[in-house]
Amino acid sequence: MRLTILLILMVALATQAWAQNKKRAREHGVKIGVLPTGKYNAITDVKGVKVGHTTLVQQNDIRTGVTAILPHDGNIFQSKVPAAVYVGNGFGKLAGSTQVQELGNLETPIILTNTLGVSTAMNAVVGYTLQQAGNENVQSVNALVGETNDGFLNDIRGRHVKEEHVVEAIKQAKDGAVAEGNVGAGTGTVCFGFKGGVGTSSRQLPASLGGYTVGVLVQTNYGGVLQVNGVPVGEELSQFSFRQQITEKADGSCMIVVATDAPVDARNLERMAKRAMMGLAKTGGIASNGSGDYVIAFSTDPGLRVPYTSDNKTQTVTLLRNDEMSPLFMAVIEAAEEAIINSLFTAETMQGKDNRTVEALPLDKVLKLMKKHHALK
Amino acid sequence: MRLTILLILMVALATQAWAQNKKRAREHGVKIGVLPTGKYNAITDVKGVKVGHTTLVQQNDIRTGVTAILPHDGNIFQSKVPAAVYVGNGFGKLAGSTQVQELGNLETPIILTNTLGVSTAMNAVVGYTLQQAGNENVQSVNALVGETNDGFLNDIRGRHVKEEHVVEAIKQAKDGAVAEGNVGAGTGTVCFGFKGGVGTSSRQLPASLGGYTVGVLVQTNYGGVLQVNGVPVGEELSQFSFRQQITEKADGSCMIVVATDAPVDARNLERMAKRAMMGLAKTGGIASNGSGDYVIAFSTDPGLRVPYTSDNKTQTVTLLRNDEMSPLFMAVIEAAEEAIINSLFTAETMQGKDNRTVEALPLDKVLKLMKKHHALK
Amino acid sequence: MRLTILLILMVALATQAWAQNKKRAREHGVKIGVLPTGKYNAITDVKGVKVGHTTLVQQNDIRTGVTAILPHDGNIFQSKVPAAVYVGNGFGKLAGSTQVQELGNLETPIILTNTLGVSTAMNAVVGYTLQQAGNENVQSVNALVGETNDGFLNDIRGRHVKEEHVVEAIKQAKDGAVAEGNVGAGTGTVCFGFKGGVGTSSRQLPASLGGYTVGVLVQTNYGGVLQVNGVPVGEELSQFSFRQQITEKADGSCMIVVATDAPVDARNLERMAKRAMMGLAKTGGIASNGSGDYVIAFSTDPGLRVPYTSDNKTQTVTLLRNDEMSPLFMAVIEAAEEAIINSLFTAETMQGKDNRTVEALPLDKVLKLMKKHHALK
Amino acid sequence: MRLTILLILMVALATQAWAQNKKRAREHGVKIGVLPTGKYNAITDVKGVKVGHTTLVQQNDIRTGVTAILPHDGNIFQSKVPAAVYVGNGFGKLAGSTQVQELGNLETPIILTNTLGVSTAMNAVVGYTLQQAGNENVQSVNALVGETNDGFLNDIRGRHVKEEHVVEAIKQAKDGAVAEGNVGAGTGTVCFGFKGGVGTSSRQLPASLGGYTVGVLVQTNYGGVLQVNGVPVGEELSQFSFRQQITEKADGSCMIVVATDAPVDARNLERMAKRAMMGLAKTGGIASNGSGDYVIAFSTDPGLRVPYTSDNKTQTVTLLRNDEMSPLFMAVIEAAEEAIINSLFTAETMQGKDNRTVEALPLDKVLKLMKKHHALK
Repeated sequence: MRLTILLILMVALATQAWAQNKKRAREHGVKIGVLPTGKYNAITDVKGVKVGHTTLVQQNDIRTGVTAILPHDGNIFQSKVPAAVYVGNGFGKLAGSTQVQELGNLETPIILTNTLGVSTAMNAVVGYTLQQAGNENVQSVNALVGETNDGFLNDIRGRHVKEEHVVEAIKQAKDGAVAEGNVGAGTGTVCFGFKGGVGTSSRQLPASLGGYTVGVLVQTNYGGVLQVNGVPVGEELSQFSFRQQITEKADGSCMIVVATDAPVDARNLERMAKRAMMGLAKTGGIASNGSGDYVIAFSTDPGLRVPYTSDNKTQTVTLLRNDEMSPLFMAVIEAAEEAIINSLFTAETMQGKDNRTVEALPLDKVLKLMKKHHALK
Repeated sequence: MRLTILLILMVALATQAWAQNKKRAREHGVKIGVLPTGKYNAITDVKGVKVGHTTLVQQNDIRTGVTAILPHDGNIFQSKVPAAVYVGNGFGKLAGSTQVQELGNLETPIILTNTLGVSTAMNAVVGYTLQQAGNENVQSVNALVGETNDGFLNDIRGRHVKEEHVVEAIKQAKDGAVAEGNVGAGTGTVCFGFKGGVGTSSRQLPASLGGYTVGVLVQTNYGGVLQVNGVPVGEELSQFSFRQQITEKADGSCMIVVATDAPVDARNLERMAKRAMMGLAKTGGIASNGSGDYVIAFSTDPGLRVPYTSDNKTQTVTLLRNDEMSPLFMAVIEAAEEAIINSLFTAETMQGKDNRTVEALPLDKVLKLMKKHHALK
Repeated sequence: MRLTILLILMVALATQAWAQNKKRAREHGVKIGVLPTGKYNAITDVKGVKVGHTTLVQQNDIRTGVTAILPHDGNIFQSKVPAAVYVGNGFGKLAGSTQVQELGNLETPIILTNTLGVSTAMNAVVGYTLQQAGNENVQSVNALVGETNDGFLNDIRGRHVKEEHVVEAIKQAKDGAVAEGNVGAGTGTVCFGFKGGVGTSSRQLPASLGGYTVGVLVQTNYGGVLQVNGVPVGEELSQFSFRQQITEKADGSCMIVVATDAPVDARNLERMAKRAMMGLAKTGGIASNGSGDYVIAFSTDPGLRVPYTSDNKTQTVTLLRNDEMSPLFMAVIEAAEEAIINSLFTAETMQGKDNRTVEALPLDKVLKLMKKHHALK
Repeated sequence: MRLTILLILMVALATQAWAQNKKRAREHGVKIGVLPTGKYNAITDVKGVKVGHTTLVQQNDIRTGVTAILPHDGNIFQSKVPAAVYVGNGFGKLAGSTQVQELGNLETPIILTNTLGVSTAMNAVVGYTLQQAGNENVQSVNALVGETNDGFLNDIRGRHVKEEHVVEAIKQAKDGAVAEGNVGAGTGTVCFGFKGGVGTSSRQLPASLGGYTVGVLVQTNYGGVLQVNGVPVGEELSQFSFRQQITEKADGSCMIVVATDAPVDARNLERMAKRAMMGLAKTGGIASNGSGDYVIAFSTDPGLRVPYTSDNKTQTVTLLRNDEMSPLFMAVIEAAEEAIINSLFTAETMQGKDNRTVEALPLDKVLKLMKKHHALK
């Protein structure tokens, strides 16, 4: 019991200790795409969405954490949201995908953590949901938990993510600006050989295209040949997968969460989810064999909430026509690309397990390259 | 620590206390299908497959358990087997499906348990695998854990399945005859309004059709209109879903595991998995909205084992041609149907949570009906 | 030109010549399932659905035809209906499936014909749609055309289905009773070794379960071990797949069309489509390697029609909640099973190519068996 | 009959008249990716693959054609190749996909043409296959025919593609350099608002990564925000989708064919197919709602050929391990991107239906931009 309290305190401290010191890509002039961003350029620009992180940086080799994304701040189990899952490459442990795909909705916070922490996070989400007021009779909970493998920097076999860390991330979730970089589920991740992490971005469609908002949050931990807004950074820095043939592995994963306030059902959410992988492609990712690249998409439209129980056998909903989906697709692609780039721009050099160090993306060099390639605005 | 030992003792006792008192369907003359069975008429007829149960019948309201199915008795992570997952209806929490679908193989024991025990079982399987000799460097484990909801008889919210129960089921797994009925993951399940449970069956193809064996194990917990070998038992007993409209729910789930020694890859294993739902259909199941009906299929062919690491970039395998699959499809359908019927024939009346009692299938009445319908041989 | 007229006349004669002489299963007392049928016990019980056949029985070896199913009698392209496709086993040539799956709707009549006639039928549907009033600017048409292989009785390589036959089937489509047996796309098919054909059936849910109607139409051309309402007819008549090992092939296909007036979207229509294969399973079908078993499902609910073009970016629809789907699933299973049995009961002995004769199901023997097994009501 | 001969002559002339006047991207210094190309930088670098075009440029408004891709020059039906289909976005009419997905192989030449020509092309492929020596008893043919909609420049409703055009493309198929641009199925297509067409490219893995070749051929007809090797050409030229909101549509499609000599089965071919959409993403494509983006992938490895009939029930094959797939994924992404860019570089300004003119990509401006952005090598 005391241990638990101590752990929570440590987590709290770790979390507070974190502060995003680094500017985001756009602040440096890296403007990806043609659509405008939302206010915070974050998944939280989609009204009602909240994000919370628990960051575990302890001893020499604990470099991991938890990120929770909440589609709204009510009881999600009682008021489910339309959702879909797309599997970009399935070498991963995402829990909860089949029920989302079958029923077209989501009934818990979305949790991201490390590969060996998925079951602990599920346990936490199940416990959290069972104990939530109003859920006294619930006997079935579909926790949606994704992961990437931070075992290069983190003592992943030590399984340091505990249930309280997950609950803490849920409870601390808030709207507004989202912490990025070495935080939450991104604490120990590596991307394109540089320090990866959590990143986020958003797009706001003009009124003529519906005026909807799309937000994306990513946990980046994968390889390939890095491109930043089209500039071949990986090549120019001579750091990319298969450069010296087999010596450099491209493996790793990317979890992507897409939120929108557009009135879209599960079928069109799945189509949006699919486009997030196109944003990943534009960063130079290759969805390598060993990657668990999953996209979870949901709509926050209050009119589409699915009540757990209802006296009505039917539900009347207003949905976007297929014909109107293309601008949302474009928004997903742009926001996913920028969210990934933000994770790289904000992550800081991290030392971890076995005295390994993963360097942050060398922003000075990168920005020089961007300038040379006329890719800053 | 002491608690753990006590629990293991209790489990051991509970397990020992169990003994299959009831005859299986075939012993009563219920002969389903046209193909012969294997020696034990069990999934263990597929050479190398082992099954273990942990049965929890404690106090008034703990009626649950764990069933483990092992494809071989080596280190499964180091020597994976070709596998596939088919989702009959996805209102369930099956963990591990996407990686099996992506890579076409299975790397842990298959665990079945109750809905709210999936994450605990994952934790156990991950821990078990990390600690297995030879896996010292493993940092990623894809636990395949299925479930059905035994919350009618079991205090499911109490989450009484512990990690040690899971490990115990794995460790006790053995070949030969398989305990059925109120055992392991079937301890608290309900099927067609009667006591469900674990059931198993097998089919052995004649040499001219390849001579392969197919074995099926099920955890039955679903509804519909029961048919036993074609006889409309549910109707005759006036017990079926929607009989009095909404008052009777058809909900519930069925987990199905299919094993074969045929040399089939993941693509054809998925096709075999799909046929198991056709066996379920023949029992009168309807795959209701609330059901989590999943089929996991794997091949034990030693030539198809997938080594975790290898110096070879390629693997040479001998595979059955598509043209030879149909007899295997028929075998899956027959074995799945009979496994389900076996679960009903062997399960016994069980009292559980809130003093609820679920009666066993009334065999005297059923056999009388079977006789009347000339369905006994 | 003259040839065309002649052909149409011949078709008309052939069609008129046909008359369903044989009673349907239910008229013999074979009552499948527990739910009541609609008025005609046909897919046309779903209001607005029309069916048309073109039957080609010419010379010694032309035994084929076309069946058209129309979801409503307006311009389907301009007023699409929600639809889904489920692939039971994909050894078939169904055209148009991916667009239905992507967009969730259907924009042409559904055509069934023989395997080598699919492209001709597509040509016809495309031509028909382009020429329809109101479609003057249409440049893209997704024809949905299914098939089974009638090459045992029919000179399938002669490719005798012509575009005018397809258009004729569309134009002759009507509501009310539906011709079954050796008619339309079922003219030359073989099922369980007996003469197969077209069959249909419907279910009407009680008001308490929503009052919706489900109708199914099938083109039966597959094998396995025939069961009629649970009675092992195939075994008793010693005619089934793999009886003498490889000598008897189970191959062949089944096309299944499911219509409903329930307000269900594409996601839930796909779930309904999936259940039709469970009805097929209950007849003893095994979805053999060589089968093209496809299910097309659509909703006729006028409120769900999808206008080709619209000034509105959104559409407001009233949809059934997931929780209410189970009775519809049961209705699909029952109607699919009965439609298949109807195809066998109504088909008549047919002589065709190479002087082959395929006997009709021997109803006298079958009914005797049914009586013995107490399976008539 | 005479008409046919005339048509063939006209086609032959049209085809001869064509000659690729324009240099390909790489010849201008646009070097996409980090892997080396094969000899021809074409899909035909995969040994045995042949490509044939029939180009229809007639009158003022016939601007269409056919492209055939042959996996080997034997009888493809008798000696099938492992294959897979991935649906990027399914608003298209690809015929034959479900059988490829079910059986994991391909049995005809792959044909690309216009949207309303699919059924004609199927008819042609079926006829061609039935008449091929050795196929005398064949009664079932799965033609794989893809399309994009060239109706902006082409009188698509006139349906000018005839069966003989398709057969001609098959017969003229050859290895070596592949004609690109306004040729075959790319004759009338539009891409990013510029003239699209056929493009091709290849990658050759270094020996240390297996030494395999990957080739891609595309038919480009889609929109988005054009990027050429990372340079924002669409933005700089002020021509992209949704620039002025709804006035510019992003709709259109891309057919992509991927060939490899790597020993990969259908499961891993599907994974390769999926990566081609990531190459499309890097050109700025968004897979808009109206796009039919399909990828067909096949392996030419002679050891993997699937004989139509065989005395053996099994087949022994040597397959690449999952772990070795990542370099092939990267190769697909690079080759798909470059194939698309090649289609744009080689296509020429075309005038067509309704006196519409679609300009070729303005290479002078583009190359100037590329230079400014340091994207030429």
